[in-house]
Amino acid sequence: MSRADFYRLDDPAQGHRVQLAPGLEARVFPGERTMLSIVTVAPYASGTLHSHPHEQWGLLLEGGGTRIQAGEEIRVAAGDFWRTASNVEHGFRAGPDGAVLLDIFSPPRLDYLPDARPASARRNPG
Amino acid sequence: MSRADFYRLDDPAQGHRVQLAPGLEARVFPGERTMLSIVTVAPYASGTLHSHPHEQWGLLLEGGGTRIQAGEEIRVAAGDFWRTASNVEHGFRAGPDGAVLLDIFSPPRLDYLPDARPASARRNPG
Repeated sequence: MSRADFYRLDDPAQGHRVQLAPGLEARVFPGERTMLSIVTVAPYASGTLHSHPHEQWGLLLEGGGTRIQAGEEIRVAAGDFWRTASNVEHGFRAGPDGAVLLDIFSPPRLDYLPDARPASARRNPG
Repeated sequence: MSRADFYRLDDPAQGHRVQLAPGLEARVFPGERTMLSIVTVAPYASGTLHSHPHEQWGLLLEGGGTRIQAGEEIRVAAGDFWRTASNVEHGFRAGPDGAVLLDIFSPPRLDYLPDARPASARRNPG
């Protein structure tokens, strides 16, 4: 435990980079039980609908867009956050200003780590 | 899964309120594996040093202060975040502007929930 455990949201050199989809790039920070992922979404970009057994929370840090979750489309603005239970289908579509999201996964998404399958074989972005 | 799973950081009516220490108030949002806690810290207020087996991440949303962790004192500003491993002693002291923190616990801090021991019997604030 040291300064090595301290990070900044806006430092592009920190975290492991994962391209989730065209226009969606994440920097992931794995812990033992929880993984944080800072996702930058280009204007009007969107991820494909998907689900996974990991519980997920999302916080919209900047910009705006639409969260798609369990068949509902919900407009979200900076300061909104939400829980996505295990195996619930979800996705995100940015508005004209793009978006920066904090995603929180528990357990960590091991498929996002450097020793996982190549991104081309990944089926659950975001 | 519905709009009931969507929240705002700044809505004082949302979350379960927990007084962690004088000048430190949390609103907690429990999930199955992870609990989010939005902590408002008054200017110059601080929590006592403590530890717990739960892994914790913290994100400074507003204001500034000092994170005390594993014997180090680290100045933090809005946009800084950090991981606190299981059982590592830690605390926080706000600066002149106070602070708003997002704390993330895994597993959830069951002692923060309404059916837990009374706050007067709690030994691990923050």
